[in-house]
Amino acid sequence: MVRIDNRLYDELRPVKVTPNFIKNAEGSVLIEAGNTKVICTATVDDKVPPFLKGSGKGWITGEYSMIPASTIQRKPRESSRGRIEGRTHEIQRLIGRALRSVVDLDKLGERTIWIDCDVIQADGGTRTISITGSFIALAFALKSLMDKGCIEEFPVNNYIAAISVGIVDGQPLLDLCYEEDSAADVDMNIVMTDKGEYVEIQGTGEQSPFTREQMQQLLDLGKNGIDRLVNIQKELLGDIGLLIGSCKKDEETDNSHQE
Amino acid sequence: MVRIDNRLYDELRPVKVTPNFIKNAEGSVLIEAGNTKVICTATVDDKVPPFLKGSGKGWITGEYSMIPASTIQRKPRESSRGRIEGRTHEIQRLIGRALRSVVDLDKLGERTIWIDCDVIQADGGTRTISITGSFIALAFALKSLMDKGCIEEFPVNNYIAAISVGIVDGQPLLDLCYEEDSAADVDMNIVMTDKGEYVEIQGTGEQSPFTREQMQQLLDLGKNGIDRLVNIQKELLGDIGLLIGSCKKDEETDNSHQE
Amino acid sequence: MVRIDNRLYDELRPVKVTPNFIKNAEGSVLIEAGNTKVICTATVDDKVPPFLKGSGKGWITGEYSMIPASTIQRKPRESSRGRIEGRTHEIQRLIGRALRSVVDLDKLGERTIWIDCDVIQADGGTRTISITGSFIALAFALKSLMDKGCIEEFPVNNYIAAISVGIVDGQPLLDLCYEEDSAADVDMNIVMTDKGEYVEIQGTGEQSPFTREQMQQLLDLGKNGIDRLVNIQKELLGDIGLLIGSCKKDEETDNSHQE
Amino acid sequence: MVRIDNRLYDELRPVKVTPNFIKNAEGSVLIEAGNTKVICTATVDDKVPPFLKGSGKGWITGEYSMIPASTIQRKPRESSRGRIEGRTHEIQRLIGRALRSVVDLDKLGERTIWIDCDVIQADGGTRTISITGSFIALAFALKSLMDKGCIEEFPVNNYIAAISVGIVDGQPLLDLCYEEDSAADVDMNIVMTDKGEYVEIQGTGEQSPFTREQMQQLLDLGKNGIDRLVNIQKELLGDIGLLIGSCKKDEETDNSHQE
Amino acid sequence: MVRIDNRLYDELRPVKVTPNFIKNAEGSVLIEAGNTKVICTATVDDKVPPFLKGSGKGWITGEYSMIPASTIQRKPRESSRGRIEGRTHEIQRLIGRALRSVVDLDKLGERTIWIDCDVIQADGGTRTISITGSFIALAFALKSLMDKGCIEEFPVNNYIAAISVGIVDGQPLLDLCYEEDSAADVDMNIVMTDKGEYVEIQGTGEQSPFTREQMQQLLDLGKNGIDRLVNIQKELLGDIGLLIGSCKKDEETDNSHQE
Amino acid sequence: MVRIDNRLYDELRPVKVTPNFIKNAEGSVLIEAGNTKVICTATVDDKVPPFLKGSGKGWITGEYSMIPASTIQRKPRESSRGRIEGRTHEIQRLIGRALRSVVDLDKLGERTIWIDCDVIQADGGTRTISITGSFIALAFALKSLMDKGCIEEFPVNNYIAAISVGIVDGQPLLDLCYEEDSAADVDMNIVMTDKGEYVEIQGTGEQSPFTREQMQQLLDLGKNGIDRLVNIQKELLGDIGLLIGSCKKDEETDNSHQE
Repeated sequence: MVRIDNRLYDELRPVKVTPNFIKNAEGSVLIEAGNTKVICTATVDDKVPPFLKGSGKGWITGEYSMIPASTIQRKPRESSRGRIEGRTHEIQRLIGRALRSVVDLDKLGERTIWIDCDVIQADGGTRTISITGSFIALAFALKSLMDKGCIEEFPVNNYIAAISVGIVDGQPLLDLCYEEDSAADVDMNIVMTDKGEYVEIQGTGEQSPFTREQMQQLLDLGKNGIDRLVNIQKELLGDIGLLIGSCKKDEETDNSHQE
Repeated sequence: MVRIDNRLYDELRPVKVTPNFIKNAEGSVLIEAGNTKVICTATVDDKVPPFLKGSGKGWITGEYSMIPASTIQRKPRESSRGRIEGRTHEIQRLIGRALRSVVDLDKLGERTIWIDCDVIQADGGTRTISITGSFIALAFALKSLMDKGCIEEFPVNNYIAAISVGIVDGQPLLDLCYEEDSAADVDMNIVMTDKGEYVEIQGTGEQSPFTREQMQQLLDLGKNGIDRLVNIQKELLGDIGLLIGSCKKDEETDNSHQE
Repeated sequence: MVRIDNRLYDELRPVKVTPNFIKNAEGSVLIEAGNTKVICTATVDDKVPPFLKGSGKGWITGEYSMIPASTIQRKPRESSRGRIEGRTHEIQRLIGRALRSVVDLDKLGERTIWIDCDVIQADGGTRTISITGSFIALAFALKSLMDKGCIEEFPVNNYIAAISVGIVDGQPLLDLCYEEDSAADVDMNIVMTDKGEYVEIQGTGEQSPFTREQMQQLLDLGKNGIDRLVNIQKELLGDIGLLIGSCKKDEETDNSHQE
Repeated sequence: MVRIDNRLYDELRPVKVTPNFIKNAEGSVLIEAGNTKVICTATVDDKVPPFLKGSGKGWITGEYSMIPASTIQRKPRESSRGRIEGRTHEIQRLIGRALRSVVDLDKLGERTIWIDCDVIQADGGTRTISITGSFIALAFALKSLMDKGCIEEFPVNNYIAAISVGIVDGQPLLDLCYEEDSAADVDMNIVMTDKGEYVEIQGTGEQSPFTREQMQQLLDLGKNGIDRLVNIQKELLGDIGLLIGSCKKDEETDNSHQE
Repeated sequence: MVRIDNRLYDELRPVKVTPNFIKNAEGSVLIEAGNTKVICTATVDDKVPPFLKGSGKGWITGEYSMIPASTIQRKPRESSRGRIEGRTHEIQRLIGRALRSVVDLDKLGERTIWIDCDVIQADGGTRTISITGSFIALAFALKSLMDKGCIEEFPVNNYIAAISVGIVDGQPLLDLCYEEDSAADVDMNIVMTDKGEYVEIQGTGEQSPFTREQMQQLLDLGKNGIDRLVNIQKELLGDIGLLIGSCKKDEETDNSHQE
Repeated sequence: MVRIDNRLYDELRPVKVTPNFIKNAEGSVLIEAGNTKVICTATVDDKVPPFLKGSGKGWITGEYSMIPASTIQRKPRESSRGRIEGRTHEIQRLIGRALRSVVDLDKLGERTIWIDCDVIQADGGTRTISITGSFIALAFALKSLMDKGCIEEFPVNNYIAAISVGIVDGQPLLDLCYEEDSAADVDMNIVMTDKGEYVEIQGTGEQSPFTREQMQQLLDLGKNGIDRLVNIQKELLGDIGLLIGSCKKDEETDNSHQE
């Protein structure tokens, strides 16, 4: 089977990350994976949601949007339609949940980090690419909080990245582009830490149900892709001297994810 | 470890299904699993969404709501707040996707089945119980369409049921009640057919990530629970003489899910 | 004239009240009158609306909703449509007004009782049945407040119940079912206390105006029905030892409403 | 008891009707009753609501709004708040129902008359004054349809007017101003035809329930006020040669309402 | 070229101002310019928007609405449609900006003046007429604040008025009525003080772009119209003894705008 | 006076245009002017708004949005707030109006061009930069329609660009950045064709009114800036061989705008 863009079944699309893409945000990247392009920003707000007031804990919340021309057929703005559609809600909740899972909210203190993922070009995998990119933006924003002395300890326990996998014409594939995604029988999104542990698995067989064996194949493919994405994150963030999760985990864990 | 309600770790809450609970719907049940109670109805509409007009295909759409007093703290109505929250959108999409996966929409013809899940008492697992109950309501509604001669062949390929599993204090548990769910480190919802194939897996480790081994344990627990729920469905629907998926699958498949 | 369900012109539909139908609410009933079924709950909230803050007075507010499958033709959810329709607003205001009229809001103290009426099956008279049932749920909730020592004196001055009457084919009828209601020339809803005093009268002659004589006939019919509904309430609430209005009214008033 | 503005208990406020107040509407009046001032317009639309398409029948719909400065404390615009409040819905439904009750919708043909009541100054009774004024605007609009040959027969069966009555400090009063209305124990709105028949009665005893005797007193007061309002309508509309209800009713009916 | 209503190219429509048209507002006028009629009110609110809390400064905000029958074809209410259209937003912002430009918000103190412009009949120029009328209503409201001792000094620096000009069939025209406005190639709204200084210029050539020479002609025409409108304001407000801008400007400035 | 970024009073910020920035749109650019960055896209839709159906004419509509991190303080999404704010409406209307003014909508045929301006970084002048960039995106989209044979003649009559000018501390300035804009006494946006004719002028003196002389200075400054922006457009579009307005205008017109 030949993939549309001649990739191997277990090959990622080329990933390119442009840090500090937006100057007003404390952290930002433009992340590109093939033709999918997302601006991920992390901005700091000194307030927390009502349920956390006085708790000393912080919060991370995710928002996601697509510019109208990002899709093949122009997508009407949710602001013009007056309401956010279900898919957007779902993705926003996923992004927030994923990033919160690797941050120690007590150490963050009573502040909110707004993660904004604005898709400017969509070719499949926008939600997973948003998570992978947002983690970097978040790390930059937290770094700036440390540099200003607002927080004492870097509150991130793990690297986190996400990837989509799926079964197309019976063949498990890594990192589906839009055309593959549209034809997939099974579609799965995996969010995973650099320790190889799952933060989120969402697998759907709307076209046809899938067996346990197929699921195992998809999980293997996914882990492979995520390891490579985490390496890209490490290269970028290592440069700014961040030791993510270093206090908590022993060395061999770090080694285990080298390619 | 003793569970709040003295259940074993792999024990379902008692399930009770009252068919034809609402007389105006073509299909309806009140499904109760412990203290969680959901009215599931299936009503037939002779129209389809715009994207299916003229296609000859039908559609199944899910809606979900909780009455204000269903939760421990009164939950404000979404109609009063003027918008549907993200969690509701997510559940509605899940219900629709799950039921569509086992129905041959071509055989359904150009009509929509509205699945309404109204939670009247909530004690954990409302989304999975909604799916399990809705399948029965849907089968009744499709039966009534066949009886009226509107469709020729029963368009359901598989039984489908859903269950929640999770890890609480390190212990994998089946069918979490609200208190367990609130304390869970990992929470997973599984939607599965009577053939043991997955339609949807959604696992989240917001409190802490989970390993592949833990996931395997949860999947085993879940399959066990779903087999028992499917048996309850079969008993109920067998009485009305429905042979779900009988044309497509050989006999041993049916046998393989007997307890 | 023979009524659809063979009732006499002045005959109520069979009424069945199931107390404590929803465990999370301080007070709740499932009330059924023929095929109309409503879940009425009363939940206590320790806040009051802004205009009562600091006044020492409490508030009672009513909400009303129909599940989609409650009506013959599926009724789209108001939450999906994003707004509450006029009829719902009207009924909600009526329910709140009616219940407030028999409660001493000073004795209630600064708290709000939320009355939720969720119609699960509709066959006419949903608004009046909601009021009759809500009064019982409210009494249970207030009893629980007394039992917890939150209020000192039971703040209810009167029993209150409601009924619909109407003129169909020139014949005044008590307790209209949906089919009768649709064919009625005149439609009237009466809310009345156990003392035979009116709390609300809403009579409409959209099909044709009505004379003063016809109105008198309807009021007579209505009083008769309400007396019987109040007796049902008394039986239920007498069991929990509530002496509604006992401090204020002399004995003969109570006697005067025995059947 | 002396009323605020020195009126007798059964005295109407001075009523002034300015016809053709708005030139773009087919029918319009400015109606003033004391300090309450409402612009009532009737505009013709060649479409009908979906449920009447192809029926040959017409429709009359009412809308009601208050300009922000109409009330003592500035009332925020419903357009700015993004939704119409319950009270407005209630009044709009009342206005539409009242006017439809005296019009033969078959004779109107497939068109909608929009009745708009815009309160520019409010001092009690805005809903009843809106109905009394709208009837005149409606008659003008229907006259213009006849003059253009769009309808053959004048489709109005009866005059219709409305008034508020209430009990303040134990005293039944006609035509309550705002201050009286705020202090009323019982508040009743009556919509009645020139034949003395009721189209709508809405009586509320939120402050205290009311007896049947009190209701009779209020109905007597109300009839008296409405007879006088209908006379004002007759004077205005008689001038344009409209014979409302003349084909259907005998002469003594008309005489019976002369003062 | 003969104008529809026989006016000269530089002739204003007859202007009529009825002060104190709405008794509940601190300031109000009905302003009529030909067939365009707007109720302008100014009401005082003791609160300010969040961004001014604690600043000691006040605010002026404008709202604008058209009653449905004000236009030739009935205009659906924005409250019924659930949102305010772009044109309304634009006009509201213009009104607020214009009036704020001539008021010393520090002298106003921490309070908001709500300017409401409710168009009851529209024949072109509603936004400019709203500004011209609102200034008078505002002055009355500020006068009443001074009379009550709430403010010490009259905080208005300049008279302000507005007018529309445009080019129709190549001919510059002053004060366009609706029919002219619809046919205009260029449309310009000018807001100007009594000192002949501009507060706002909005010129649009949607049908065809316009030259600098044409713009000069339009500005000349506009200044002429505004001078006459300011004189009308001065006559009205002079009667209540207001010396607008008198502390700041020397006498010849005032003289320079006498006709 | 030294400007923040050391520009001369009549100096534009560096402009950079990246064509075809978004592959799914028929036309797109990333336009940067200093730190302000806007993605402008033009997408073709084969439908027209209802008022143009059957007219043979096309339409151009503008939408504008800012990503949350584009501003110094994170700007909440309008989709989350459920409604579009007044400023956005105003800008959207301006963009649509400007572009329609230079396109022959008859030649466009019954189709809509959606212009989307998504601001990804804001440092003043977003609305004028949006217009300048959108014109290029529009030209690309129309070129693609010609190339596909959908339209026969290039329907653009003029180049169009826009610029902001203003008065800061008494000094007229060209192309204000955010900090200058915030401090400006007078703010003016000018939209102009390559022929030096005005399409739109919007001048506001909220902080203080401005004289006719000041306006002339601002117009001179603006013309100068626009001429340079048009030259940039010509360079870009000349490359693709577009002869805008060439059929209609003689040669010297083109020469007159060379720098």
